[in-house]
Amino acid sequence: MAKQPQSAISPTRAENFPEWYQQVVKGADLAENSDVRGCMVIKPWGYAIWENMQRRLDAMFKATGHENAYFPLFIPMSFLEKEAEHVEGFAKECAVVTHHRLEPDGKGGLQPAPSAKLEEPLIVRPTSETIIGATFARWVQSYRDLPILINQWANVVRWELRTRLFLRTTEFLWQEGHTVHATEAEARTETMRMLDVYADFAEHTMAMPVIKGEKTAGERFPGAVSTYSIEAMMQDRKALQAGTSHFLGQNFAKAQGIKYQDENGQEVHAWTTSWGVSTRLIGGLVMTHADDDGLALPPKLAPSHIVIMPIYRNDEEKSQVMPYCATLERELTSQLYAGEPVRVRIDNRDIRGGEKKWQWVKRGVPVRVEIGPRDIAGGKVSYNRRDSSGRFEAPRDLFASHISKTLEEIQHALFQRALQAREAATIRIDTLQDFEAYFASKDEERAEGGGLAYCHFVESPEMDEKLKALKVTVRCVPLNAAEEPGKCLFTGKPSQRRGVFARAY
Amino acid sequence: MAKQPQSAISPTRAENFPEWYQQVVKGADLAENSDVRGCMVIKPWGYAIWENMQRRLDAMFKATGHENAYFPLFIPMSFLEKEAEHVEGFAKECAVVTHHRLEPDGKGGLQPAPSAKLEEPLIVRPTSETIIGATFARWVQSYRDLPILINQWANVVRWELRTRLFLRTTEFLWQEGHTVHATEAEARTETMRMLDVYADFAEHTMAMPVIKGEKTAGERFPGAVSTYSIEAMMQDRKALQAGTSHFLGQNFAKAQGIKYQDENGQEVHAWTTSWGVSTRLIGGLVMTHADDDGLALPPKLAPSHIVIMPIYRNDEEKSQVMPYCATLERELTSQLYAGEPVRVRIDNRDIRGGEKKWQWVKRGVPVRVEIGPRDIAGGKVSYNRRDSSGRFEAPRDLFASHISKTLEEIQHALFQRALQAREAATIRIDTLQDFEAYFASKDEERAEGGGLAYCHFVESPEMDEKLKALKVTVRCVPLNAAEEPGKCLFTGKPSQRRGVFARAY
Repeated sequence: MAKQPQSAISPTRAENFPEWYQQVVKGADLAENSDVRGCMVIKPWGYAIWENMQRRLDAMFKATGHENAYFPLFIPMSFLEKEAEHVEGFAKECAVVTHHRLEPDGKGGLQPAPSAKLEEPLIVRPTSETIIGATFARWVQSYRDLPILINQWANVVRWELRTRLFLRTTEFLWQEGHTVHATEAEARTETMRMLDVYADFAEHTMAMPVIKGEKTAGERFPGAVSTYSIEAMMQDRKALQAGTSHFLGQNFAKAQGIKYQDENGQEVHAWTTSWGVSTRLIGGLVMTHADDDGLALPPKLAPSHIVIMPIYRNDEEKSQVMPYCATLERELTSQLYAGEPVRVRIDNRDIRGGEKKWQWVKRGVPVRVEIGPRDIAGGKVSYNRRDSSGRFEAPRDLFASHISKTLEEIQHALFQRALQAREAATIRIDTLQDFEAYFASKDEERAEGGGLAYCHFVESPEMDEKLKALKVTVRCVPLNAAEEPGKCLFTGKPSQRRGVFARAY
Repeated sequence: MAKQPQSAISPTRAENFPEWYQQVVKGADLAENSDVRGCMVIKPWGYAIWENMQRRLDAMFKATGHENAYFPLFIPMSFLEKEAEHVEGFAKECAVVTHHRLEPDGKGGLQPAPSAKLEEPLIVRPTSETIIGATFARWVQSYRDLPILINQWANVVRWELRTRLFLRTTEFLWQEGHTVHATEAEARTETMRMLDVYADFAEHTMAMPVIKGEKTAGERFPGAVSTYSIEAMMQDRKALQAGTSHFLGQNFAKAQGIKYQDENGQEVHAWTTSWGVSTRLIGGLVMTHADDDGLALPPKLAPSHIVIMPIYRNDEEKSQVMPYCATLERELTSQLYAGEPVRVRIDNRDIRGGEKKWQWVKRGVPVRVEIGPRDIAGGKVSYNRRDSSGRFEAPRDLFASHISKTLEEIQHALFQRALQAREAATIRIDTLQDFEAYFASKDEERAEGGGLAYCHFVESPEMDEKLKALKVTVRCVPLNAAEEPGKCLFTGKPSQRRGVFARAY
């Protein structure tokens, strides 16, 4: 094997993917572990990516008729007892508030005050179905009150023992949509509409190809009738569930008493949905686009589209270069990319040029520009694109006037590269032997994950046992799958449709 | 006394101000109490106002060099033990997490699992100085790392026994700025810069006049060297602290080990600040601008600037009116007000016209337009402004092209009205007797609060006792106060400057 070229991130993806991930997150200054076990600090560069995600998603939610609101952080313990499956799914991993005051412990420290013990413990929300449902029960009286289309941006807590930045943390940030409808058909339409919004966002904003599909019964959200997800493939050939949309039927409405008088004066239970994406998306972004030099950001989400690095050796050159950079910045920021002003940062910090350059490479800025006296004299801009290893040069006016086109090319190139990687790692498998061989394989090309295997299946204990042994899960049954008669790989029973199997985060 | 004219909100401000406040909040659909004691549900109309506040404040923070980040919801109990004054100030009112799992209690319910008791309890953040400080201690090594200018948008929890929507709730939303500087001078400049940002926001966005001043020692943030605030006056003549900016000196830096190597290689402690505003501002907005018909919103914060109500009696009229309204909407939304597209809502709900109109009055929409066949025939728009009881009429083209000017007039009028109310309730008092009479007075004009009294003072136990008896507090020492020799009202000691005294929220 030829010697690897030196890379900015060590180890490389091929050497140790999980450690590479941690180093990319660190090198891009996205987040770090905090002093509270399992909770992360999201650093400014990482948070700016989240803000960009929020802004674009929020606009999509509002364009589909939703409004934002805010509900309590705490959920009374008794609320979790109402929906049996739901409590089973979430009670095992939640932060429990039992006291409302601290007092001196007599040894110079503090302790929860015994006199301030809560009569009923409060749970820090792991998700808000129960508390929002109780509120909706008050809001909904008549069919005229429907539909209710609400979204909440919030923090949630699910106690985790083994955590990884963005991918699995005790506290994370997310949005959760909660809607109430008069009819099953409307609620099902809403469920699919929001799945489409997520897929659109993943593919056109994150440049991350996804498969839309329905979860199997074993993978459903606790309490849901149907759970749909978008599934993405990471560069280690593992799948990542990137967003979910749940049709909750009347399960929560019945548990919480969400009822309305219909046009005939009959009192009937409503139909509800919920849907969410979280800061986990940032983990997906990293594992989709980053390379051995660090993060590569799709322009639509990059906090800075372009970083300009002035190059000068003395004050005279500086007095020439700095105003030139400022003018170029103005020309660029006066243009729009994807409906927003182009975002430019001039980095004039007094540190070594190489160090500066590599900081921006590792942070994934789409376009890097160096401006020195020679560039000014030549009327040219030489620049690097993060999606390519080459160096580009363009007349200054052309560079500035084409910047939106350049950014769109990068956005498109990142998507195409991810799509090709996914296609190269997708296979149809028709025998259990091939299935086992595929997921047993550890050869280099397949990294450690195997890939996405489309297979016939029927849910059964035999399948569950086999998958558990191989550490494989069925990700979803793709919505666009054509009917195709076949036989379940695990039981031989007749099957009408293939599911997607993969190792997963 | 003459009979009051009928009003949309009952009781009126004069009849019962606290109950009027609750009814305005309810009538405007801003928020409601939740199933969790002391925690509120912020409803879509209230949350949209908060989003508008956030968007404008966030832009001001970024324009002054700050970046957003996110820190953990939980704080280890031991962190609160480090800064003595701080723990004294916050330990008494916090939610304590002691377990990380629930389990069946054997009686069909749930209980905190004894086996999942945390070794160290976690506190739900009442404010994040301690956890952010611990993080900054890792980030700061050299003078080159400074300044650090961070803001966080977050929820915080301070256990409250008596709560009022927006004004005092156990959980609330806020932003908290946290900065680290190499020198005292820089940190002091930052403290004042952010106070100025808050005052600018309050006056030019909220249309709420404020006094910038320094808090007395007794009213300082626990652990701060100096606390500054903006103080607003409500219509019941009580003051509302609307935002604070704290110069923390080296107190937190020493408690948390935030040190850096200066240019000479010496390790020294840094200087820190913090500053914040919260959803309490929405309470201030209500008590500044609402009247006996409900909320009145300054256009810069209104979720909708204009509501258009189509009027028709049959399908033929409808087919004429609806397209006309849609065209008018497009003309309006294509214009900018205060840098943002004009926000228009067409309300075509099938409910009684009077009910519809009063809903928008109570919600405080700046401009209401009714469009019927006669308006179309006459080429005119007749409209109401929420800052006035009159009805206006304008040729359609003029109405549309002047909308930005109209909104700015309303914004200005609300500020002027609030400013006049404050001035009418401001007084200079020079004897204790007058002071006592002023705050004892319950005549109608003075409502129940007295007003703002500018008085000479020197902090002393005598003063504290007297103020406590009168339920009055010293709000601040205004920054713009000229030096003026005088005598303390309470002790006769010489004083150089007047403070502002008032009853307060």
